[in-house]
Amino acid sequence: MASTHYMDPERDNPELTEERRRANFDPEVLGDFFWQGQLKRRRQICEYVRSQGAELAPAQPVPFMTRMEQLEDVARLSVGMRKHAENVIDVGSPQEQFYFNSLICGYDGSPFHLHFIMALPAMINNCDDEQAAEWLPKLFNCEIIATYVQTEMGHGTNLKALETTATYDASREEFVFNSPTITSTKCANFGVVMAQLYTNGKCHGAHPFWVQLRDIDSHKPLPGITVGDIGPKFGIGSNDNGFLRFNNYRIPRRHMLMKHAKVLPSGEYVPPMHAKVGYTSMMYVRSVMIFGNAVYLAGAITIAIRYSCIRRQGEIRPGAGEVKVLDYQTQQYRLFPQLARVYAIAFSGIYIMDMYKSVIANINAGDTSLLSDLHSLGSGLKSVTSWQVSLGIEQCRMACGGHGYSEASGIPALYTMAVGGCTYEGENIVMLLQCARSLMKLAAELRSGVAIIENGTKSANPVTGYLYLANPPRKCRITQESGPDSYLEAFEHIARQRVFSAYDRLAQLRKRGRSAEEAWNEAGVALTKASKAHTINFMAKTFVERTKMMQDSAARADSFMSAQQAEYVRIKMYDSMQRIRPIALTVVDSFDFTDAELKSVLGRRDGNVYEHLLEWAKQSPINANDVLPFHEKYLGSFMKEVRNEREMSKI
Amino acid sequence: MASTHYMDPERDNPELTEERRRANFDPEVLGDFFWQGQLKRRRQICEYVRSQGAELAPAQPVPFMTRMEQLEDVARLSVGMRKHAENVIDVGSPQEQFYFNSLICGYDGSPFHLHFIMALPAMINNCDDEQAAEWLPKLFNCEIIATYVQTEMGHGTNLKALETTATYDASREEFVFNSPTITSTKCANFGVVMAQLYTNGKCHGAHPFWVQLRDIDSHKPLPGITVGDIGPKFGIGSNDNGFLRFNNYRIPRRHMLMKHAKVLPSGEYVPPMHAKVGYTSMMYVRSVMIFGNAVYLAGAITIAIRYSCIRRQGEIRPGAGEVKVLDYQTQQYRLFPQLARVYAIAFSGIYIMDMYKSVIANINAGDTSLLSDLHSLGSGLKSVTSWQVSLGIEQCRMACGGHGYSEASGIPALYTMAVGGCTYEGENIVMLLQCARSLMKLAAELRSGVAIIENGTKSANPVTGYLYLANPPRKCRITQESGPDSYLEAFEHIARQRVFSAYDRLAQLRKRGRSAEEAWNEAGVALTKASKAHTINFMAKTFVERTKMMQDSAARADSFMSAQQAEYVRIKMYDSMQRIRPIALTVVDSFDFTDAELKSVLGRRDGNVYEHLLEWAKQSPINANDVLPFHEKYLGSFMKEVRNEREMSKI
Repeated sequence: MASTHYMDPERDNPELTEERRRANFDPEVLGDFFWQGQLKRRRQICEYVRSQGAELAPAQPVPFMTRMEQLEDVARLSVGMRKHAENVIDVGSPQEQFYFNSLICGYDGSPFHLHFIMALPAMINNCDDEQAAEWLPKLFNCEIIATYVQTEMGHGTNLKALETTATYDASREEFVFNSPTITSTKCANFGVVMAQLYTNGKCHGAHPFWVQLRDIDSHKPLPGITVGDIGPKFGIGSNDNGFLRFNNYRIPRRHMLMKHAKVLPSGEYVPPMHAKVGYTSMMYVRSVMIFGNAVYLAGAITIAIRYSCIRRQGEIRPGAGEVKVLDYQTQQYRLFPQLARVYAIAFSGIYIMDMYKSVIANINAGDTSLLSDLHSLGSGLKSVTSWQVSLGIEQCRMACGGHGYSEASGIPALYTMAVGGCTYEGENIVMLLQCARSLMKLAAELRSGVAIIENGTKSANPVTGYLYLANPPRKCRITQESGPDSYLEAFEHIARQRVFSAYDRLAQLRKRGRSAEEAWNEAGVALTKASKAHTINFMAKTFVERTKMMQDSAARADSFMSAQQAEYVRIKMYDSMQRIRPIALTVVDSFDFTDAELKSVLGRRDGNVYEHLLEWAKQSPINANDVLPFHEKYLGSFMKEVRNEREMSKI
Repeated sequence: MASTHYMDPERDNPELTEERRRANFDPEVLGDFFWQGQLKRRRQICEYVRSQGAELAPAQPVPFMTRMEQLEDVARLSVGMRKHAENVIDVGSPQEQFYFNSLICGYDGSPFHLHFIMALPAMINNCDDEQAAEWLPKLFNCEIIATYVQTEMGHGTNLKALETTATYDASREEFVFNSPTITSTKCANFGVVMAQLYTNGKCHGAHPFWVQLRDIDSHKPLPGITVGDIGPKFGIGSNDNGFLRFNNYRIPRRHMLMKHAKVLPSGEYVPPMHAKVGYTSMMYVRSVMIFGNAVYLAGAITIAIRYSCIRRQGEIRPGAGEVKVLDYQTQQYRLFPQLARVYAIAFSGIYIMDMYKSVIANINAGDTSLLSDLHSLGSGLKSVTSWQVSLGIEQCRMACGGHGYSEASGIPALYTMAVGGCTYEGENIVMLLQCARSLMKLAAELRSGVAIIENGTKSANPVTGYLYLANPPRKCRITQESGPDSYLEAFEHIARQRVFSAYDRLAQLRKRGRSAEEAWNEAGVALTKASKAHTINFMAKTFVERTKMMQDSAARADSFMSAQQAEYVRIKMYDSMQRIRPIALTVVDSFDFTDAELKSVLGRRDGNVYEHLLEWAKQSPINANDVLPFHEKYLGSFMKEVRNEREMSKI
């Protein structure tokens, strides 16, 4: 069943050909399943980009560029990308847009990244009809580049405490902006700016505004605006995150985005139908992030498994020769759970993207009832998946040994980008606490009996339904023959236990006289654990539903699960590892990454790693000469000096 | 008790002064304890370096330099370092040597790094008297720069499978070298090279040789040698890890290091007294690494706690104003265990350094009996501490939110360096399996009753003694009042259980007909878990012994520990967190890092973070102009073009 798409037996490392021939399924089917029916489209787009040659390809690998060179190259590439976009992608499809963007500009960010992923959706969701007619065409055709401005030097996740203010001046029908923020600032000339809205001396909380930052022609910052780059970061070098400061900067009244809340010329404030309806662009990004996280991990596991199929080290049977490192149980234990996670996270990502779409449709129809469900699930998933993926990528990197530490592996850049997702769009711990808010509300209703009445419909809720269960099993029913459903019971048990134990801790603290807020803080750790377990339970359920096959790591033992049952799970896991081993390479092939996408010498489709590692290294400016240009100036003359000293002292 | 050393109330951020005044102990005493009585010496050395100004200071922060600039600057600094060394440090003290090196060259590596930490100890341990007299003075005065050559493109940790060969040619009394290796190659001109020794057609395994790589005067690679840099890595940019290839390269017979094994002129091989006695330089580095890992984490936690004392975000009590983020229970839960880990790891590091010294003294006296104990403990500690420290540093970084992601935090560089330690000097999983070898040998003896006979002396062994216990407690004795000793029982219980369960799994697999080697592989995961638990138990014990105060994270619940007992531990942990909170800043102050050492805007001693973040960013070449130099060429002209197109289409 091996797909010939991935095979070139004449040229490939024979280790990989041998592995691919063992596959008992068609990777094209699995790949199309993972990419939700888009495999062929992706290949068309990919082939188009490849066929354009240098115009749409990086000038050299990113690790060899300075940051300035990287920014310049991505500016060049992103213009090329926009010019070709209409020839090949459906520009109305965010999915194709993102794929096209990452194919050409990589994952490290581009001038259009925040433009498309944050500013444009924010504008779509927050402009009224007149505003949309005026501004959206300019965003779609990219004659302006917009950014999203919210994080401040002194404030990140806590939107309530934003220091940027937009004070309405009714006499001139303008808003006056003040204070510091951090955002993309070198390439963008407009921004969707979140600011505390003040009218008639009263604060109405954070609202979105459409603000011009730079001159259309000269691109110079406008008077009243200070901008700059925030400097080098852990990763995403070509994302020009910057700082931005307003000093009595004025914009017209109609530049407040007025789909939901409004300010009338008089300064009268018209509130939105739901307080958080202006925050949907954050929810959008979090929804998009989940599947994106799965893709990052899919990249890393593709590299690690391919490399583990060609890397030989050590013997299992003495004298039988060195084995492929993927044959070690310890290597499988390190890598195969990551493979399972890719799917678990991807499926949750698909689920929440669908949920986002229906919530927005509902809002447009005047129904905001599911907004907080979306917020809660998105917060939990964003937090759990970004951290699982980060840990998973590091395991993939370390599983490649010393070569994994080289930028040639492509994994360091994947890690620094993915782990950024633990912080941006809402710091992970804060997000878990957000998720816990709705869980504690529900737990209170369930404990008081209020929610039970609605049991009929609510227990069917795929996210929170398990909490409604009147008589959950008190003992784990896992046997040697158990399938995924009893495993799910264990996930539900843990989640239920953590949710109610956090609730009980809160209640206990209240009884001891703590205020609601103090109790919330002192139960903080328990609350984050509840949210994590709740989210992982959702992911496990979604995973089983989509695959009816379960291979994630075993749940922890406690009095619910006996040691014997834990052993069943363990045996099953080792069995799964043995079943996955022969097909592992073909499973990762099915993610269908091209070498240009993976940017990894270790993860080359053809497995010809060692010869290309040296080729790669030769591109380093350090290797331009046998001797470093400054050698004589420092170390060379120093060594001679001390040698002479020693020789003189002997005389 | 606040030390005035850390306080400057006139200029410091008042948030920090307030915290420091709350301290109920003298940080100088704690600091001197941590640095083993060397606090004053460290300050003298630090002050000397500071007083030399630009000569011993980096030209600019590393994040703003290209790798070539970084290599040049560290070459300049390392020459300065050597020239000043004798004025201020005891050059015979490795401790002072490392500190001086890291003060001037940072942690990222320098031309003398491998020279002093690997090549020199390898030479000291492996040269016979005549060789030592000839070569050691040249290594001590640095008239040559040596590297350590072992890792190969296709082989890392598995010394047995090294491909580099040294074949003895009796006719010319020379060794002929062939094959590829990876090492530091741009600055060094000599190397200690590990190669498979062949004499008279027979392989004797890996042995160390002293090999000249470059011409003394021109620094050009010698004929038969190809060298180059391996290219950019995840971190440690100024470490010039390279590749090296021998093509029939010849060295004289006496360049084999002959303290232990020898080759006589005839080609006759004289074996060492212990097969692994030539590997002591690896054991040395692993021993040094442990305390070094503690220092990395100490740096990260210093940054994170200082920043958490000045960063305010969100409210705990409504209307009471935003709180310091360190007041959140979740932040304490993230950071305080790292603080405890610093000490636990440091104490284990001190222990194993002492052990190393006595093992070497024993070897020199002809006794190799403790060599494998050192190897086993070192392997376990290297693996557990490097990973704990890496995870800990990332928690510190993420606890700093978005600013933690900036290189301005100094934490990304700490992470990429520390996490390298999971891979170099023996990949962590392989190291755990090495540690498991000796544990399984002991478990077999204990199960067969052989070891019990020696119980009297062996059970006192601080590393493995707990395994000899004839009647270990079957139920956890933790009560609400329990102190550290009952906690240690829990650590011992888990370690004992994991060790014997791995042993049982091995025995079971053997019974089912697996060969010893197959069984070893199929028990791989269980074996690594046994080694981890065993090592953590040792760390916990060492920690309690040195402090009689225990605050590491709670052990997992199983049938040994009841849910109620687990709850006691949890309550104790929350209590500890509350007790640590008021003194946290002073504890990290006591590590006594200077701002020049930490290289972190967030971790500044004075807490004046926000104003310096912008100052730092302004150094970026990206901020040299308001508009990027290539703006018009790409994005500027593109935006104009599409704007014109849109306007034309309206007409």
